[in-house]
Amino acid sequence: MSARYHTAYHPDDVLKSSEFKILEKGVEPTRDPSRNLAAAYAPGAQLHLIEKPVPKAREGEVVLHVRATGICGSMAKSARRWSSATFAAPATSVASGEVFEVGPGVTHLKKGDRVAIEAGLPCGECEYCRVGRYNACPDVVFLSTPPYHGLLTRYHAHPASWVHPIPDSITFEEGALLEPLAVALAGIERAELRLGDPLLIWNSLLIFLGAGPIGLVSLLAARAAGATPIVITDIAQSRLDFAKQLVPGIKTVLVERGVEAKDIAEHIKQVAGLPRGLSVALECTGVESSVQTAIYASKFGGTVFVIGVGKDFQNLPFMHMSVNEVDLKAQYRYANQYPKAIRLVEGGLIDLKPLVTHRFTLETAIEAFETAVDPSRGAIKCQILDAAF
Amino acid sequence: MSARYHTAYHPDDVLKSSEFKILEKGVEPTRDPSRNLAAAYAPGAQLHLIEKPVPKAREGEVVLHVRATGICGSMAKSARRWSSATFAAPATSVASGEVFEVGPGVTHLKKGDRVAIEAGLPCGECEYCRVGRYNACPDVVFLSTPPYHGLLTRYHAHPASWVHPIPDSITFEEGALLEPLAVALAGIERAELRLGDPLLIWNSLLIFLGAGPIGLVSLLAARAAGATPIVITDIAQSRLDFAKQLVPGIKTVLVERGVEAKDIAEHIKQVAGLPRGLSVALECTGVESSVQTAIYASKFGGTVFVIGVGKDFQNLPFMHMSVNEVDLKAQYRYANQYPKAIRLVEGGLIDLKPLVTHRFTLETAIEAFETAVDPSRGAIKCQILDAAF
Amino acid sequence: MSARYHTAYHPDDVLKSSEFKILEKGVEPTRDPSRNLAAAYAPGAQLHLIEKPVPKAREGEVVLHVRATGICGSMAKSARRWSSATFAAPATSVASGEVFEVGPGVTHLKKGDRVAIEAGLPCGECEYCRVGRYNACPDVVFLSTPPYHGLLTRYHAHPASWVHPIPDSITFEEGALLEPLAVALAGIERAELRLGDPLLIWNSLLIFLGAGPIGLVSLLAARAAGATPIVITDIAQSRLDFAKQLVPGIKTVLVERGVEAKDIAEHIKQVAGLPRGLSVALECTGVESSVQTAIYASKFGGTVFVIGVGKDFQNLPFMHMSVNEVDLKAQYRYANQYPKAIRLVEGGLIDLKPLVTHRFTLETAIEAFETAVDPSRGAIKCQILDAAF
Amino acid sequence: MSARYHTAYHPDDVLKSSEFKILEKGVEPTRDPSRNLAAAYAPGAQLHLIEKPVPKAREGEVVLHVRATGICGSMAKSARRWSSATFAAPATSVASGEVFEVGPGVTHLKKGDRVAIEAGLPCGECEYCRVGRYNACPDVVFLSTPPYHGLLTRYHAHPASWVHPIPDSITFEEGALLEPLAVALAGIERAELRLGDPLLIWNSLLIFLGAGPIGLVSLLAARAAGATPIVITDIAQSRLDFAKQLVPGIKTVLVERGVEAKDIAEHIKQVAGLPRGLSVALECTGVESSVQTAIYASKFGGTVFVIGVGKDFQNLPFMHMSVNEVDLKAQYRYANQYPKAIRLVEGGLIDLKPLVTHRFTLETAIEAFETAVDPSRGAIKCQILDAAF
Repeated sequence: MSARYHTAYHPDDVLKSSEFKILEKGVEPTRDPSRNLAAAYAPGAQLHLIEKPVPKAREGEVVLHVRATGICGSMAKSARRWSSATFAAPATSVASGEVFEVGPGVTHLKKGDRVAIEAGLPCGECEYCRVGRYNACPDVVFLSTPPYHGLLTRYHAHPASWVHPIPDSITFEEGALLEPLAVALAGIERAELRLGDPLLIWNSLLIFLGAGPIGLVSLLAARAAGATPIVITDIAQSRLDFAKQLVPGIKTVLVERGVEAKDIAEHIKQVAGLPRGLSVALECTGVESSVQTAIYASKFGGTVFVIGVGKDFQNLPFMHMSVNEVDLKAQYRYANQYPKAIRLVEGGLIDLKPLVTHRFTLETAIEAFETAVDPSRGAIKCQILDAAF
Repeated sequence: MSARYHTAYHPDDVLKSSEFKILEKGVEPTRDPSRNLAAAYAPGAQLHLIEKPVPKAREGEVVLHVRATGICGSMAKSARRWSSATFAAPATSVASGEVFEVGPGVTHLKKGDRVAIEAGLPCGECEYCRVGRYNACPDVVFLSTPPYHGLLTRYHAHPASWVHPIPDSITFEEGALLEPLAVALAGIERAELRLGDPLLIWNSLLIFLGAGPIGLVSLLAARAAGATPIVITDIAQSRLDFAKQLVPGIKTVLVERGVEAKDIAEHIKQVAGLPRGLSVALECTGVESSVQTAIYASKFGGTVFVIGVGKDFQNLPFMHMSVNEVDLKAQYRYANQYPKAIRLVEGGLIDLKPLVTHRFTLETAIEAFETAVDPSRGAIKCQILDAAF
Repeated sequence: MSARYHTAYHPDDVLKSSEFKILEKGVEPTRDPSRNLAAAYAPGAQLHLIEKPVPKAREGEVVLHVRATGICGSMAKSARRWSSATFAAPATSVASGEVFEVGPGVTHLKKGDRVAIEAGLPCGECEYCRVGRYNACPDVVFLSTPPYHGLLTRYHAHPASWVHPIPDSITFEEGALLEPLAVALAGIERAELRLGDPLLIWNSLLIFLGAGPIGLVSLLAARAAGATPIVITDIAQSRLDFAKQLVPGIKTVLVERGVEAKDIAEHIKQVAGLPRGLSVALECTGVESSVQTAIYASKFGGTVFVIGVGKDFQNLPFMHMSVNEVDLKAQYRYANQYPKAIRLVEGGLIDLKPLVTHRFTLETAIEAFETAVDPSRGAIKCQILDAAF
Repeated sequence: MSARYHTAYHPDDVLKSSEFKILEKGVEPTRDPSRNLAAAYAPGAQLHLIEKPVPKAREGEVVLHVRATGICGSMAKSARRWSSATFAAPATSVASGEVFEVGPGVTHLKKGDRVAIEAGLPCGECEYCRVGRYNACPDVVFLSTPPYHGLLTRYHAHPASWVHPIPDSITFEEGALLEPLAVALAGIERAELRLGDPLLIWNSLLIFLGAGPIGLVSLLAARAAGATPIVITDIAQSRLDFAKQLVPGIKTVLVERGVEAKDIAEHIKQVAGLPRGLSVALECTGVESSVQTAIYASKFGGTVFVIGVGKDFQNLPFMHMSVNEVDLKAQYRYANQYPKAIRLVEGGLIDLKPLVTHRFTLETAIEAFETAVDPSRGAIKCQILDAAF
């Protein structure tokens, strides 16, 4: 099965296609909705618009008209790094769209259905897939991770069993935010953050926001899960302010560079009104000093949960963790989170709309990337929208 | 230790005291705030106002001025039954107040502190106390369970370690609703209802309201825990309407008597939009047909959790439970829920205020009981309030 | 995918094949190893030997030479009931064998490999399959459950991903006992029986043996999991004696018919030396009075776990469960247990060998069934073995 | 309550007693069983025999005749370090004995009862005590941790609720090994090592032995919990050989200094026959390179559990943990493990006897310490035994 996906989604066919075309800078992209426009990095990490063939729906597939894709700074940076070695579409694993064509054998979807796209295609047969942790599948095809193309394209063929129908009450913009929500929900699940913790009595929560929307989405999800009090920290006041608008009751701590982790931790505990520390810390930056702070800010028996990418090796206060039984855990992608994410948005428990700060058309996708990586633009989430036709 | 509580709170001393006095009906109760007024059942289940001595704070104790106590229909009925054999205060384990006197050795409380009162006093040394399930303590003294007096009194002596400080943002009325919230939270904890369930993907929830506030408090707590969709059922439309005002997004099913459990279950699944069934059912009535409905409405791997008192023996669809791995669990009181309950109300995640539908003074406590047991009065929670002085 | 399995393993092709032949009683079965001999029930529940075509390995399949199959009384009875409406092979989902032919696309197996066969083929794509509870898959093809043929045949085609290689240290006889072990392990997992229970301190265990090998296999598995003390009950002293030979340290209680459940429970607690009751009860009979006894014998917070088939509706001491927080759970088949079962046997933690009490050849399969359903023969597990050639 | 223990067990009274006497080296200690002999460090870390008063049993206490105490190298080293600032008895928290005198209010024990002594006396009233994690109690009095005296004494007064009766089948020597077993069991519980893991299928286990008996006791406990396969590593072949005698089926890896953590990890996986890694690693050394090895040897979703003391800060392969969801946890003392430990030894699931390699009398206690800290003596556990009289 894995073999099937590896072959089906390998970009070679596209790259060798006669319809494949790189649009030089300044060249006006096609406005013809029957043509497939996309964005991709050429070797050397230069971003281009490209044209590629409109795919045909094969057995078990649907072809989607991608209506919304999202990018954020950290993804854009990863994409740039990955693309240095290969010709790949940007790392956009975040998309929603509508069904454009239904392949043979697909009975539960029809043209026009609105869906969110899960970008990871696990093999379905290995030990990890069978126990429900398919994010660990060694044979996964994760669209947007080289060599596989991402979802920043007008038309995209996808296995019908890996798209998730969304109700009319969820917009395409929201649909393209379900992926960071899936990451946050996976973290909250493994961090065992919940209303009723049998051992820690209640879930005070500390979130390290970091760049990108993950910290903010985690905040929304944690509040929906009943965490209180919630303290958030960041090095940018503007980000703290944004967070406070999202979830009014939270407490904030502005972190100044150069202050010792232990001292920040004491300050956090004071702000929380919890001298013994907080139950769970969601660390969304991956920065070493921030992980250290999270450990020091935890109460006995607490959990520091990292959803972020940082240095390969980190120097951690090991004995402090040990004598306080502070667990250190981290998250790799997600499994089985899309249905939950859709329900929570549909049920009104999580409102993702405020996170989209900048909008672009498919034809101006390159500008979207430039905005995402420029801190002065203050983007949380840039989305690229393609209108219906 | 258990022995200590058994002796300290045994009512004999009070009953034999020269200050103990039963007020005959029609006799005007004292308005003197320095006197201790209370309500109790005499043998034969007749409710009286009584006068009893103002207690003195002993080692490790505080004397409280009880400011709010709550009663509901089912408690009032239990109290009536219990009291037939003994002279006991009504089954009111639900109270908040302020510290009036601080006993020797108590350092963390001072006169005037506002507190919620936990009515169960476990031994602290048995196997169950040591593992954190002190609700199972065989030597517990549970105030309001005969022979021990309840909390419907002006002045009450209590171990300082079993009162929980409440912040100014929580009113005494809310403080006296923390006990049913503690029951609901204990249920939600053991039912493993949470935002992120690793095995059932999301927590759809079915609640059987039943009489009394437990169903409604469970609804508030379940929403705070992230359950969605939530379907509630009851035999009274007025109660469903009240619930829908509390938590607007929920779905309701009016149960008509005489309809088969299986048919009601099918209707519930339809209303939920979940043909395979719901993840968790909180059954707050204890009625056999309702427990059966809950089992039939559950999805494979679901949990039916009973917070309610019903028939001793019940006839249950055993094989349906078995081939669908539906777990049946129930709740007995609570342990370690007060701190969590206080945080959730303080943090604004749960609003208990709308549940108080009727208010009385201590002098009119008997009328409060009459109101609570009269279905035509539509009381959710009757509270007895005693003003500051 | 489900569709694929439904079609691939539907028996119609076999039944319509020109090679399909029912052997009348008394007719000598073929001794030719190149011919495919099997046993099946004809409509009317008469057991016959049959001949059917030797299957060819299709894409992703292996054809196996089945070397050992197992049957027990309860399975034989189920098979008889099921077969009344259809022409099906007996309900034998319990087999091991060696790879005889490898189909296209199968790379991890080769001719001669020794394997255990998992009889359930879930769809791999539904919600339950994705979260790792594939025993709940609504589209599962469970070989031996009508209309699908079972494994009591010489040659059998099977998806290569649903056979489990066994090391040389595990015999085919043991390999054909991995299925009841998988059931027991699934139960132990969901019953949360383990060495270190955080809430109940230690795992005292009560097992109700019942007919068939499940009770005894559960006993072996529970001891491997660290349960102690273990008390087992049965209505047959011979079965208790057999159990005591398997696991010498256990305690036994002979149940006499007509004794009240509560009284038996008291006796069990006394024998265990645990006046407050036992932590976990594995109820392997499904009999109502036995489930009641298990509930009464449980301590506060205990679990009664049923691995057995009984009356559809059962009358249970509901309020006793409730005030003692005794959870009631049950098991439906198993998921992800074969790899664990193989490891435990390979590692020497569980010795299944003593459970095979009677052995037959494929040609005498009918006699094996007669032995299994005749209590006077005292069979635990009858196995049908087919020699190598 | 905490205050009570702090006062009751403070050593000042003993040190100021007229009966307190330091025995100079070479002075023959008393052989009079009515006198209380002990061993303690004087400031400056010199070990002495001392005489001190025989305690009287106060309310709720028993006085014990300590029959067996255990010491190991790491404890002896800690004691030496601690004692530099204070006059304290050696860090011996490991003892069993018999009841010599019963104080007022103690009803469940009588003179002559055989007991194991739990050295930690938590307050019983704080948040941690109430949720069952009393090892986190900030007001605990842990006998043997300065300033509190340890248990290496003939007569010792102890709260009756913190001694655990042991049956006749458990010797005093074994009783004095229950404490390291309690540590190991606490680790196994929090590491979630069990026969039936729902997410990791089976529990392959890696143990880093390290000095002292903890690694070996963990090995015994892990096997009782059903772990298989088990791989153990150490830098001393003799220790691996000893382990293999204890639990014959295990696999061993001799670690050579200077080899890269990643390379050792690969070798471990190869020896285990598990190319994807092991489920749980119990790291009993606390050494940085060993923790790194454990992380690299873990499979996706595995747990590295540290029961050991090491460098305050450690440099860990953070991103490897993150992309493989390897959890890092550690253990601080234990809670609620003694009853479990006693059951497991009583039930024959764990045999502690082989761990006692050297035996001494109370009068030769100093020699015992010297033996424990001298690697050339090859001691696993030194015990000091005091005969009955």
